Amino acid sequence: MKAIKVNRARLKAAMESISAVGATPRGGLHRLALGDKDKEARDMLRDWCTQAGYPVRVDRIGNMYARRAGRHEGELPVLIGSHLDSQPMAGRFDGPVGVIAALEVMKTLDDLGIATDRPIDLVNWTNEEGARFQPPLLASGVFAGAYELEFALSRQDNDGVSVASELERIGYAGTHPASFSISSYIELHIEQGVVLEQAHATIGVVSGFVGIRDTRVSVFGENVHAGPLAMHLRKDALIGAAQMVLAAQELGLANAPDARVTVGRLSVPSDSHSIVPGRVDLVLDVRHPDAASLDALQAQLEDRFRLICAKLGLSVEFEPYWNYAPIVFDPAVREHIRSAAEQHGYPCLDLPSRAGHDALNVAKVAPTAMIFIPCLKGISHNEAEFATDEDIAAGADILLAATLAAAMK
Amino acid sequence: MKAIKVNRARLKAAMESISAVGATPRGGLHRLALGDKDKEARDMLRDWCTQAGYPVRVDRIGNMYARRAGRHEGELPVLIGSHLDSQPMAGRFDGPVGVIAALEVMKTLDDLGIATDRPIDLVNWTNEEGARFQPPLLASGVFAGAYELEFALSRQDNDGVSVASELERIGYAGTHPASFSISSYIELHIEQGVVLEQAHATIGVVSGFVGIRDTRVSVFGENVHAGPLAMHLRKDALIGAAQMVLAAQELGLANAPDARVTVGRLSVPSDSHSIVPGRVDLVLDVRHPDAASLDALQAQLEDRFRLICAKLGLSVEFEPYWNYAPIVFDPAVREHIRSAAEQHGYPCLDLPSRAGHDALNVAKVAPTAMIFIPCLKGISHNEAEFATDEDIAAGADILLAATLAAAMK
Repeated sequence: MKAIKVNRARLKAAMESISAVGATPRGGLHRLALGDKDKEARDMLRDWCTQAGYPVRVDRIGNMYARRAGRHEGELPVLIGSHLDSQPMAGRFDGPVGVIAALEVMKTLDDLGIATDRPIDLVNWTNEEGARFQPPLLASGVFAGAYELEFALSRQDNDGVSVASELERIGYAGTHPASFSISSYIELHIEQGVVLEQAHATIGVVSGFVGIRDTRVSVFGENVHAGPLAMHLRKDALIGAAQMVLAAQELGLANAPDARVTVGRLSVPSDSHSIVPGRVDLVLDVRHPDAASLDALQAQLEDRFRLICAKLGLSVEFEPYWNYAPIVFDPAVREHIRSAAEQHGYPCLDLPSRAGHDALNVAKVAPTAMIFIPCLKGISHNEAEFATDEDIAAGADILLAATLAAAMK
Repeated sequence: MKAIKVNRARLKAAMESISAVGATPRGGLHRLALGDKDKEARDMLRDWCTQAGYPVRVDRIGNMYARRAGRHEGELPVLIGSHLDSQPMAGRFDGPVGVIAALEVMKTLDDLGIATDRPIDLVNWTNEEGARFQPPLLASGVFAGAYELEFALSRQDNDGVSVASELERIGYAGTHPASFSISSYIELHIEQGVVLEQAHATIGVVSGFVGIRDTRVSVFGENVHAGPLAMHLRKDALIGAAQMVLAAQELGLANAPDARVTVGRLSVPSDSHSIVPGRVDLVLDVRHPDAASLDALQAQLEDRFRLICAKLGLSVEFEPYWNYAPIVFDPAVREHIRSAAEQHGYPCLDLPSRAGHDALNVAKVAPTAMIFIPCLKGISHNEAEFATDEDIAAGADILLAATLAAAMK
């Protein structure tokens, strides 16, 4: 099959229009889930889809679906899309690229008069970011059965406003079931890392999600005055914590390029210039695409931390509180993506996603894969987030080809 | 002269009575400056002094003075005492030992019919601890001219209540000048360290105060997502801070036994499990009894921190905000203390104070020295703080002898 391309100008114009809704002065986006700007963006998407002849349904958790009919309407649909909500004062590409490209895919198929066997459903997931309502990936979680509908509807923002009342207020409390069967799911997204940029690759064939394990670590020593006691008699919990931070980095680097080990939270409760810290609390974040390696690395870190404390006369406690197993995407859908990239001549490579996306939920109930495109220096959740028009168009071309492959029997 | 001793039983009874005012269930003391319990303790001290024939004056910042007349009333007084206020949920010895022993010194002189050339003034300083009103050593600072009276009166606690209004409320807004000339100042205090305990010494001849220098250190890297970016590309400010914490300890230990180097405050503003820290703020506290050594150690630490950052691709900023030069106590007053200890046969040694006391202020305006006695394991600012009756009595004996020597022409 010839490598067909989406309409560059139309895609760019649509990205510009949707980016204007909640635009920040420095070229970013502030469009929190279910706020006034999210309603405005949803209305814009609904109008575009309706005008193009793709009837829009809204489900009970506010997810929007727009259908391009297939030849066999009884077939399960191919689902494509992403999310229109953003983090506070963030970028215009994280989410919208996948939604707007999905619409462009359907329009290009119309332009070329291509009928697919299966229907194609565009999706805009509610509250992907989790910035306003916790947890993130909320509505795709309901879709995939990870969360009860009632749980999701009852989530409240910091002002005590619930998802249910906001859906009602902005007119997106739909009646469509929040869960239904699909034949496959494909999501286009910016990488939010530098793997593609550094490899000069345009297309990332996402292999799945790395496993993520977070552990609260508490280090115990003895609070003493910073003056009188001789230093060699101290039991300074911060010395233990500092050694742990360095050991975490060392073990993470020793397991490159797959592992990530991070201490992003660390606090000293005594918080006084004149008190030797008797306690330090930190959070250890370990990521690895392979489940067994993740387990081994976690065990290695905990052993090392215990050894550090034993040598210093400190004690340590671990409290696991977050544990996502790695997810491997569907080989057939990944192959659709890879062969499309080769056909188009876009340099591509395989990589896992190290951040969460709605595909993480959907992968549990349907064949799923993701397409990544580069973003400048990996900067994301930041007004400076940037992806080129060319890369967005290339991503849309691949979404088009992979969707077409998935929608044909 | 024969080694005269204070009345053990009376001293012990007075310590028990004063310790009951603000006593905590676990044997400690909670008697914040100018609160109801501080008023009760002040009233008790005032009644004891008045009944013993020592007229009490209160100055404009609430410091209490009780005078035992001298033969030559025109002579400048010898000032002895400490403070009755405490840290929250703290110990019963930090402060009160010096006040109650001072009263016992005057009573013993009465018992023995000893007249001194100079008058002796007992003092109870207002707000030594700085737990309720910042800064600590507040009223001795006014006495020594370090703070303006109006500044001290305007200090507020966390509820916005001022020193002035509390002095008025509890009846200790006096009219005596907050500053007057004295011939010398001697303060008995628990060590709050383990130097005496480990040397099996009963009396510490305090040589002065160590210098204390506090510096805010900010380490700058780059906030990035903990997932996508390869670990070797990170600019993790917490890695830099951890190396600094360990370097601070290393350089402190290398300058044992005189130096103390402490990081007691450290915070990570990004505070997210999934963000590699782009900034860490910490406070570096350096103490040394010798001014030149303190300067050299501070310079060495800052050089080392800069080197750590240079190697890691981070940057660092230093903001000095606290700098007390070392203080050397008066040789004559120290000699009174040392010879008294030798005469009594109490094992003694010289040591600097590594914590702040009112003597730090008074030393700037009059010949000053301090007597330390041991406290169990150096534990202080804690309900478990403990000193034996024998050591308190020994300390009072030395205060008696040193006061007598200072009060004779």
